[in-house]
Amino acid sequence: MSTATTIKFLQKPTSQAWLEQALANLDIVLLDHSHCERKAAGVALNLMFRYPAHTKLVRSLTAIAQEELEHFDQVNQILEQRGIPLAPLAAPPYGASLSKQIRSPEPDRLLDALLVSALIEARSHERLGLLGTHCPDLELAKFYRGLMASEARHYGIYWVLATTYCDRAQVDQRLAELAIVESELLSTLHPEPRIHS
Amino acid sequence: MSTATTIKFLQKPTSQAWLEQALANLDIVLLDHSHCERKAAGVALNLMFRYPAHTKLVRSLTAIAQEELEHFDQVNQILEQRGIPLAPLAAPPYGASLSKQIRSPEPDRLLDALLVSALIEARSHERLGLLGTHCPDLELAKFYRGLMASEARHYGIYWVLATTYCDRAQVDQRLAELAIVESELLSTLHPEPRIHS
Ligand SMILES: [Fe+2]
Ligand SMILES: [Fe+2]
Ligand SMILES: [Fe+2]
Ligand SMILES: [Fe+2]
Repeated sequence: MSTATTIKFLQKPTSQAWLEQALANLDIVLLDHSHCERKAAGVALNLMFRYPAHTKLVRSLTAIAQEELEHFDQVNQILEQRGIPLAPLAAPPYGASLSKQIRSPEPDRLLDALLVSALIEARSHERLGLLGTHCPDLELAKFYRGLMASEARHYGIYWVLATTYCDRAQVDQRLAELAIVESELLSTLHPEPRIHS
Repeated sequence: MSTATTIKFLQKPTSQAWLEQALANLDIVLLDHSHCERKAAGVALNLMFRYPAHTKLVRSLTAIAQEELEHFDQVNQILEQRGIPLAPLAAPPYGASLSKQIRSPEPDRLLDALLVSALIEARSHERLGLLGTHCPDLELAKFYRGLMASEARHYGIYWVLATTYCDRAQVDQRLAELAIVESELLSTLHPEPRIHS
């Protein structure tokens, strides 16, 4: 099995080690995935709270938040079918470390927040795709393939929003910088199996 | 016109003065309504973040958050049709004053949070119903009538969750206490027209 397909935006593809870790821990990865979907909805909603007058952002992120809640519910149904109880789970450092890259003064803050979300969505798209291809549980593999298309749309939407509110050259430059950080964060495998370990 | 119908849970019906203020300021009320729907989604999501292992709560509030986002989008479409731009709007004291009633230690915190949400939903149900009956703009009146049924379901769901996680006698007693506070908060009309002025 190979992880070599490179997703637009991502500096480096996911390692073989991550895929092996995930496939050996599908239950924990499912539980973590549930938390990821809820967090994705939360991030979209928080951006709408912060920029309530940015009409296009509000429209696009309303749709994303709705889809993330739909994914959250779907993952939770699968957890229930498999008898895995909902439970808290320590997050890997990935999300918090990426959020630290968001500069405080505007308009940098908006640009960085949109691009960090774009990168997380792109990585989710890549990894759900890997699970969709390599997961030996065919029902689960099908579920992952169903989600990966949404996540691809989501990273496109975050990128479009970045280019809507910020200068294109700045978007390209900052995305390149953040993409290096994002790949670097994943270069050492987190010991606990997670979607973003 | 009369505001005399009393909604279950609510200690006192909405005043005639509120209805007159709202009908005289439909555009501002619509904009405030947009903020209310986004906040309602946010409250539901925040509860899911706080109680990630409460399966029934997570399931029920996922559905509520999805519906609130749907309402948010519907209100925003009406704002767009009417040429009212999205904009920040100072919130009336109602929501923050009610939130202050939420005690910090568990399990009181969960009980209070669920009952405060139940009361806000019940009041929204009542007021959207009043607008649905008395709004002279028939298209808008129809929109409000469409939403009021959802808000009624929402207050029922918050109440059911309270009785799921807390003792029934405690729920009844605390609801009675909070309902008095809620009606008291609305006994003086807030000078700015709002859904919860
Ligand atoms: Fe998702
Ligand atoms: Fe997503
Ligand atoms: Fe609503
Ligand atoms: Fe509601």
